[in-house]
Amino acid sequence: MSIQYILEIIGTFAFAISGALSVKDQKHQDWFGASFTAFLCSIGGGTMRDVLLDSYPLVWISDITILYAIIAGILTTFIFYKYLIGLRRTLFLFDTFGIALFTIVGTEKALHLGVRPEIAAIMGVFTAIMGGVVRDMMNNEIPIIYRKEVYATACLAGAVSYLVLDRAGAERNVAFIVASLVIITIRILAVRYEWSVPKFFR
Amino acid sequence: MSIQYILEIIGTFAFAISGALSVKDQKHQDWFGASFTAFLCSIGGGTMRDVLLDSYPLVWISDITILYAIIAGILTTFIFYKYLIGLRRTLFLFDTFGIALFTIVGTEKALHLGVRPEIAAIMGVFTAIMGGVVRDMMNNEIPIIYRKEVYATACLAGAVSYLVLDRAGAERNVAFIVASLVIITIRILAVRYEWSVPKFFR
Amino acid sequence: MSIQYILEIIGTFAFAISGALSVKDQKHQDWFGASFTAFLCSIGGGTMRDVLLDSYPLVWISDITILYAIIAGILTTFIFYKYLIGLRRTLFLFDTFGIALFTIVGTEKALHLGVRPEIAAIMGVFTAIMGGVVRDMMNNEIPIIYRKEVYATACLAGAVSYLVLDRAGAERNVAFIVASLVIITIRILAVRYEWSVPKFFR
Repeated sequence: MSIQYILEIIGTFAFAISGALSVKDQKHQDWFGASFTAFLCSIGGGTMRDVLLDSYPLVWISDITILYAIIAGILTTFIFYKYLIGLRRTLFLFDTFGIALFTIVGTEKALHLGVRPEIAAIMGVFTAIMGGVVRDMMNNEIPIIYRKEVYATACLAGAVSYLVLDRAGAERNVAFIVASLVIITIRILAVRYEWSVPKFFR
Repeated sequence: MSIQYILEIIGTFAFAISGALSVKDQKHQDWFGASFTAFLCSIGGGTMRDVLLDSYPLVWISDITILYAIIAGILTTFIFYKYLIGLRRTLFLFDTFGIALFTIVGTEKALHLGVRPEIAAIMGVFTAIMGGVVRDMMNNEIPIIYRKEVYATACLAGAVSYLVLDRAGAERNVAFIVASLVIITIRILAVRYEWSVPKFFR
Repeated sequence: MSIQYILEIIGTFAFAISGALSVKDQKHQDWFGASFTAFLCSIGGGTMRDVLLDSYPLVWISDITILYAIIAGILTTFIFYKYLIGLRRTLFLFDTFGIALFTIVGTEKALHLGVRPEIAAIMGVFTAIMGGVVRDMMNNEIPIIYRKEVYATACLAGAVSYLVLDRAGAERNVAFIVASLVIITIRILAVRYEWSVPKFFR
């Protein structure tokens, strides 16, 4: 098993927990709503990336481990949610961990499929955010990427960092860790100090 | 012509009627709104399944009969809508018939494409519900699967029934009919007795 | 460079401007919101068409010029938006120009991929409207095609005009220009005289 594979499974598990937790206080906080939302959040972004890049079979269709990682995340949320909800920042942490992993994993996969770096960065960001975008559209909420301070932009910064390090000849694991830390650090600072993206219309 | 093909055409026709009827009392209850919604409801779920499974050409693109079945559904709704609306349960009946057929047709198609049973069940459910999900998202409503009591879950129960019967060596037509009846029965009982899916957060 | 290619680039540029302008007065009128919306509006429709038709690689993934045309549209909007907003009809004009070009380009591309004329017309309409539909769904607004008087229907009329002229043996450039003018004329008249599509339910 490669490290990339293990990280994908962990990212999937983290996104399933963040997805299931997100239906708390929604009208559809039942087993179906929680499971379906966890599923969408976990596979939405990667599915969009792979459909856009014509990369078939989709990972979660050919590798059943992904589905069981999602089910494990749902059950974990069900069993431990009182503790998870108790920790005020739990949802934030699982989500941040998920977007950091998925951005870099998505950027790498797109690069390996032979697209240009600019497109690989877009694919990395899509991998990280599109599951959440679909979740929010289905909840009839303004998508997270439009609400949150420096959310998708943090992913873009991480993807660009990875591509620069890769081009500069950095070792792959170093590039992966540094780029992930860029995303996690920006997100934590953005929430802590209420950073926001500059206005477009002055 | 196979029985499966005839059932797909009937399901498409039923979903077109349920889709066109659903724009009544929406702001866009004009010819375009009704036709476009009927089209989305009829082809949305199967299109998503086939894109996810890389099964091309899409059925409605290669077989023009599908498009004419949709147009027939739209015209039927236009001509008879006073009678259809008059029957209070018409929309419910066409929708229930549509999801029962599409769940099993979708599960079978996915199985034939060689995916695992767990994935085939998901594909069956997607085939049945995703047209309605897209319709509701475009209407800015909470998707039907999040509102209704035991809606997608009924489809999942039907898909699992089909897979169990298939694995147990049941004849294909028997499995098809029994699994469809499972979905129709659960839906009717759920609406009649206001069943709902158990809460995820206790 | 073919004329069709130049028109695609111009249409992309026009849609990027119309997309970036559309976030004015939204909550997310920051650099990310404007850029992401411009991107979605420019590539959404063509991407949906190509995914449905299994036509890979997607144009904007294989040809980086598209991405730079979008960035040029975003920067143009940023620099000149005071003048663009000042012209009351600017957004309307860029959007109308974009849908006319994209409808015909999309219809032609689908025809070249060998689908029937009915399907090619649907693909032309999808190419024109689906970017805006996704934009509106993400903004939690009723999609433009459901609100505006004779919007998608104008595209359909243009696509059908193109197909009739093509079948009648008209020269390609003549068919292109006439069909585009059909769309632009209908849209201008529809907004000027408040045309609307006939009611479906009498």
